[in-house]
Amino acid sequence: MSFTIKLRIAPAISHFDLNRKTHKNSTISRTPIYHSNQLSTSLVFRTKKMVSPIIKSSLIEPDGGVLVDLVVPENQRDLKASEADGMVKVQLTKIDLEWVHVISEGWASPLKGFMREDEYLQSLHFNSLRLKNDNGSMVNMSLPIVLAIDDETKERIGGANDVALVGPDQKTIAILRSIEIYKHNKEERIARTWGTTAPGLPYVEEVITPAGNWLIGGDLEVLSPIKYNDGLDNYRLSPKQLREEFDRREADAVFAFQLRNPVHNGHALLMNDTRRRLLDMGYKNPILLLHPLGGYTKADDVPLDVRMEQHSKVLEDGVLDPKTTIVSIFPSPMHYAGPTEVQWHAKARINAGANFYIVGRDPAGMGHPTEKRDLYDPDHGKKVLSMAPGLEKLNILPFRVAAYDTVAKKMAFFDPSRAKDFLFISGTKMRTFARTGESPPDGFMCPGGWDVLVKYYASLQVEEATPAAVSA
Amino acid sequence: MSFTIKLRIAPAISHFDLNRKTHKNSTISRTPIYHSNQLSTSLVFRTKKMVSPIIKSSLIEPDGGVLVDLVVPENQRDLKASEADGMVKVQLTKIDLEWVHVISEGWASPLKGFMREDEYLQSLHFNSLRLKNDNGSMVNMSLPIVLAIDDETKERIGGANDVALVGPDQKTIAILRSIEIYKHNKEERIARTWGTTAPGLPYVEEVITPAGNWLIGGDLEVLSPIKYNDGLDNYRLSPKQLREEFDRREADAVFAFQLRNPVHNGHALLMNDTRRRLLDMGYKNPILLLHPLGGYTKADDVPLDVRMEQHSKVLEDGVLDPKTTIVSIFPSPMHYAGPTEVQWHAKARINAGANFYIVGRDPAGMGHPTEKRDLYDPDHGKKVLSMAPGLEKLNILPFRVAAYDTVAKKMAFFDPSRAKDFLFISGTKMRTFARTGESPPDGFMCPGGWDVLVKYYASLQVEEATPAAVSA
Repeated sequence: MSFTIKLRIAPAISHFDLNRKTHKNSTISRTPIYHSNQLSTSLVFRTKKMVSPIIKSSLIEPDGGVLVDLVVPENQRDLKASEADGMVKVQLTKIDLEWVHVISEGWASPLKGFMREDEYLQSLHFNSLRLKNDNGSMVNMSLPIVLAIDDETKERIGGANDVALVGPDQKTIAILRSIEIYKHNKEERIARTWGTTAPGLPYVEEVITPAGNWLIGGDLEVLSPIKYNDGLDNYRLSPKQLREEFDRREADAVFAFQLRNPVHNGHALLMNDTRRRLLDMGYKNPILLLHPLGGYTKADDVPLDVRMEQHSKVLEDGVLDPKTTIVSIFPSPMHYAGPTEVQWHAKARINAGANFYIVGRDPAGMGHPTEKRDLYDPDHGKKVLSMAPGLEKLNILPFRVAAYDTVAKKMAFFDPSRAKDFLFISGTKMRTFARTGESPPDGFMCPGGWDVLVKYYASLQVEEATPAAVSA
Repeated sequence: MSFTIKLRIAPAISHFDLNRKTHKNSTISRTPIYHSNQLSTSLVFRTKKMVSPIIKSSLIEPDGGVLVDLVVPENQRDLKASEADGMVKVQLTKIDLEWVHVISEGWASPLKGFMREDEYLQSLHFNSLRLKNDNGSMVNMSLPIVLAIDDETKERIGGANDVALVGPDQKTIAILRSIEIYKHNKEERIARTWGTTAPGLPYVEEVITPAGNWLIGGDLEVLSPIKYNDGLDNYRLSPKQLREEFDRREADAVFAFQLRNPVHNGHALLMNDTRRRLLDMGYKNPILLLHPLGGYTKADDVPLDVRMEQHSKVLEDGVLDPKTTIVSIFPSPMHYAGPTEVQWHAKARINAGANFYIVGRDPAGMGHPTEKRDLYDPDHGKKVLSMAPGLEKLNILPFRVAAYDTVAKKMAFFDPSRAKDFLFISGTKMRTFARTGESPPDGFMCPGGWDVLVKYYASLQVEEATPAAVSA
């Protein structure tokens, strides 16, 4: 359960422009975030490790034993780019590009490209992949990571072996080699991934329904690291960079917290309590990976830039300790596929070096799109996660339920013996508070973080109140 | 890959009444079947083995290492029956009873009863179960084997630990112990099992839609072996009986052929060719398990009794060699769930001692219930089967396509270099031939077997032409 990585000096990370407007619905003013968690300084390694560049890491092994890195080395980029020029071009959507990012950095290790049919079928039926050259052992792989093409593109590809992938801005992003084209049975993919085919699943409507009827798999070579130029690229640490940082901090346990919502004090309580429990277990230096999801989210989720600013306030206000916390962006898009997706969220964090994963109520869940109920049983996520093939080496930490304790006037673990003292503040309720300008109960969220949300929702209301311009 | 079984004298099998009408749609006259494959004689063991009752079997190990047998020993039956009298009663449907049969004889080993939620979730998400006390290794378990109850029954059960299961004839069949009741999310079960939620799936309409909103899992104790009294019980050999028979015949390879259709000469060609290939591989005595499915099938499938008679003719006519063939009934109901179900079909045969499994085009498939296409990609079944967790020890033998060779005037393996010489005779076409009294091409099916089908379809036509009696 250990492996050797080569540590090297991280490239100097330039300061980023946080005044750039990163979300069209968000017009709040920008100030630099992460004053107290400035990764650009923390990534300067101490002399000792620079002298001895190869150290034994005690971090959990990535799936398949080796962290996948599909970014072409700089000295080969021109050559590969010329080669790609001569290939049939396949157009990527914004979300396809997020998946290219995910695959290229090894979050889905040992996956080396978009899935071919044998990988797709294993993912769909078994939520796992059998390794070909490791005694047939299994790694978890619960979401199909696939690239769809339409009939016309398939026609253009013809008998080609390799194709070039072109980003939404028409720049060539990557090469896909030794391709395999197979049928995209959308109904089956949706049914087996979500456990429903009801209309209104966000990822289905946004990604799958408009997609082509074919899937194209192959080995990926990405011409240069994927960047978004949204002022947040420095917070998109790759699994390799995260592992380097955990080693630099001499972490002997890494616990990951996946989120796509603002952090309230209940979350913070949980994370701090987890650290305490890990110390009790004998770990000397547990590090928290606070890991907001940065890819596609549904329209009514709080956008990434606002969440990142909110998270920074939580660290500034001292609710979480910057010395033992790393905040970074997980580049995956959201599926909202509950028990199937939570496995992906956990598996990707193994590849980033986390050996503990916190799982809450109804992870990656949402309301049923056509019925008045949760789409998934709220307990199934953690049950499925704890039994999932390929995740045996990951320690699953079930979320204890936190709620607002009206007596202690703070977020606290729910105590069923005095249930009436507790107030559950749902996302919807929080949103209503923020929109109406009403303050949540004292101690629900640090004031700086709350302020970010109030401004965001106020900006939405201004936008909603402004009549849309008539386009020519 | 070997285990020890105790061989004991099979109870004398009484002669059975084949004149009993076993299917209401079938009015053809009965003659005893299996003259040439009379299991009641073959089950008399040779003296040598009676003297030495424990022999080392070379058969494949059952899943979990021990074949499950949940039938209460005779000397405890009265006691258990009295105990069951005092328990809350849970009513079984005809198909529930088929599952009780399946579980009780160990076809689903290591499953010891209807699934509790942790088994159900693993089956639904991973098509496999992790063994609790065998280093966490996996066995295949692709279909949820569950018992549904309605709100009223759940209410009646209350906090009881054990319940009694009552058959359609109101006789107490079994005890279910240490029960667990959990939600029956039908939509999710259907979507994840079939990869569609389209209306018109036979098992869904027959079993799931009318079922209750709760599932009840627990450990099963069956008060006496499940019998159907339809004249075919002697052909329902349990996995234990089959293993005894394979050992008696000194099989060094057992190849299973699952079917729910009449056997034509293309099937026979395939089975005989498989035997030849196994001999070429160095096996000395490969035995064929011709294993028609005997549980629930959809209304337009040929009923079991007719199929059994047809199969007996195939052996009588010498198309298959009785010396190296065992015909027996697989008691499972059909799901028509394609790649998900074919794993169940294969896994159950491991438990019966088969180490080779023949898989064809679109196994357990059917037409899409609402679209003009196959529900499953015809190649997915064998692909999924070959990658399925828990089936590593089973040798998958892909079906070679056989068709009617109009030049050689017999069924032959399809030769793409002279495709125009081959005639594909679909099930629908075969049925049309039989219904219209038209003969299929010479060499398509042995005349005795064909005759059985013609009579069956003629009886259906008589029935359709007869006006239904008006009930009082």
